[in-house]
Amino acid sequence: MSENPKIRFGIIGCANIARKVARAINLAPNSTLYAIGSRSMEKAHKFAANNGLSETVKIYGSYDQSWLPTRRSTCYWKKPVALDVAQLDHILQACESNGVQFMTGTMWLHHPRTAKLKDLISDSKLFGPINYIHSSSTRPGTKEFLENNVRVKPDLDALGALGDLGWYCIEAALWAKDNQLPTTVTALPDVTKNSAGVILSFTASIQWEPLDHTVATIHCSFLSHTSMDLSISASNGTMRCNDYIIPYAENSASFEFTSGAKFAELHIGWSVSPEEVRVISQLPQEALMVQELSRLAEGIREFGYRPDRKWPDISRNTQLVLDAVKKSIDLGCKPVSL
Amino acid sequence: MSENPKIRFGIIGCANIARKVARAINLAPNSTLYAIGSRSMEKAHKFAANNGLSETVKIYGSYDQSWLPTRRSTCYWKKPVALDVAQLDHILQACESNGVQFMTGTMWLHHPRTAKLKDLISDSKLFGPINYIHSSSTRPGTKEFLENNVRVKPDLDALGALGDLGWYCIEAALWAKDNQLPTTVTALPDVTKNSAGVILSFTASIQWEPLDHTVATIHCSFLSHTSMDLSISASNGTMRCNDYIIPYAENSASFEFTSGAKFAELHIGWSVSPEEVRVISQLPQEALMVQELSRLAEGIREFGYRPDRKWPDISRNTQLVLDAVKKSIDLGCKPVSL
Repeated sequence: MSENPKIRFGIIGCANIARKVARAINLAPNSTLYAIGSRSMEKAHKFAANNGLSETVKIYGSYDQSWLPTRRSTCYWKKPVALDVAQLDHILQACESNGVQFMTGTMWLHHPRTAKLKDLISDSKLFGPINYIHSSSTRPGTKEFLENNVRVKPDLDALGALGDLGWYCIEAALWAKDNQLPTTVTALPDVTKNSAGVILSFTASIQWEPLDHTVATIHCSFLSHTSMDLSISASNGTMRCNDYIIPYAENSASFEFTSGAKFAELHIGWSVSPEEVRVISQLPQEALMVQELSRLAEGIREFGYRPDRKWPDISRNTQLVLDAVKKSIDLGCKPVSL
Repeated sequence: MSENPKIRFGIIGCANIARKVARAINLAPNSTLYAIGSRSMEKAHKFAANNGLSETVKIYGSYDQSWLPTRRSTCYWKKPVALDVAQLDHILQACESNGVQFMTGTMWLHHPRTAKLKDLISDSKLFGPINYIHSSSTRPGTKEFLENNVRVKPDLDALGALGDLGWYCIEAALWAKDNQLPTTVTALPDVTKNSAGVILSFTASIQWEPLDHTVATIHCSFLSHTSMDLSISASNGTMRCNDYIIPYAENSASFEFTSGAKFAELHIGWSVSPEEVRVISQLPQEALMVQELSRLAEGIREFGYRPDRKWPDISRNTQLVLDAVKKSIDLGCKPVSL
């Protein structure tokens, strides 16, 4: 056994996203896939075969079994994690009291582009105080999807587009504001629901007033063409990124940054046009996420560190804002204080 | 005299924007600058000298005088035209009953890029029904500007950022919807005003529900870095243009268009990334605007045509939505029906 053995992962559930995560675990240099568990042995074996998993990977045909063999120091969760913050708190408290690192699977936070973006928007001269954040996350659902997918079933992902797509937009707004909780959330009256009452499309505003006058608008929909836009306006600069959740390509990703733009003489053009800032990524963002999770797990296992509060804090604040949007929608778009 | 004499323009008021328009009149092949009028002869002469106007241009030292010598068939107005639709209707009715063509000075509607955009977003296969429109228009005001500029004075452009910047965003949303009036307008609670009560920053949503479920959000501010973004999401496509009001450069302008994008296998990228659609413009958009106005004037003068309803209709609908945003702000962000 080497001095720094790889962190062993178990995957519970063999949905499509698990294929991406299995690949990421194999790509992350400090991680290895140890076990998979599905509702049946048949499903689990099929998953292993279809994804070319090593023969050493343990295969379990029930969820209960697959929890057993791993000495757990991390808990990685697909988003949305819970239906509300009370439910989330049960999970977070269980992790906390067992010294387990919690992390939600929002991969974009681990891309080096995101760090570069943060550097630039934190520059008080180039960018300045943030006034406005806008994010939209849309993906087109087929008729079948809009009535039957797990994401729009009241007894499964009952939050619909709010839980699935809204999670990203809310998290992005909080990310821009260094995870500072807003004060007020207001849904807009354009909510669309399916026949079971699950949200298919919505728009909302998030305010940090009177703290610092920042406002965000978010729009999420299962009815529109694929998009994932994030734009941030500050006193001295503008940033735009239109593939922030899943980059167009794996190896490099970019965003637009403009600072100090004025109009040319007679207003017949701009003094500067946006710069395309491109960032190379040696590993896909999901592998970087797994690598980070393993790094934290190693700290806990080898050095007795406490779990990092950063990740559960981000998820909890995201859930709090998500709950407020839900409440505002339920109240007929009344503003909801946090 | 040639068979098609150029249409003669008079400019009333020598503000900065008049310099741009004077240049545009000289560039438009069917137009000529005939006269300028200012509040004083001194101002008018200074304007003529500073802008290299031909010596044949008549110069008037009062607004009344400058109205007299021209046989009027057009009326071109800087935006915002009026403080509300009642005031605008006086102007429109005066034009109507005198057979005068009215047009508001929103130059971007005349850029060939705008026509190309319209073609693409009207394609039911490539784009499909429009679900969501977002536009922001921001420009940073100095402290001096925010208290004293004509755009933020309650006795001058009393509509502040709503009249100056909101005009564009509302017009863009209406343009996307073929000038169809929305049904409901709701301001968001993040309104910022100066000490005189003039709007410096606001956000609002515009809905065409229950007609067709389209919703638009607009954000306008004198507090943020220069931006002018328009993005449109439809069932099958996404369009983004970040310099729609004043293109980065005069000779060519672009926008991003994506259609039918899906995620790659395992969601590790996109099947297509946005295409940059670039459009060459042989004349600046403001010269194309003047050319169009002259074309309509010639139709009236030479062929006895009625003024084209298109331009006053666009301005009137823009003003109606603008009034509704103002009313919603005044009512504490209650939804306002149109």
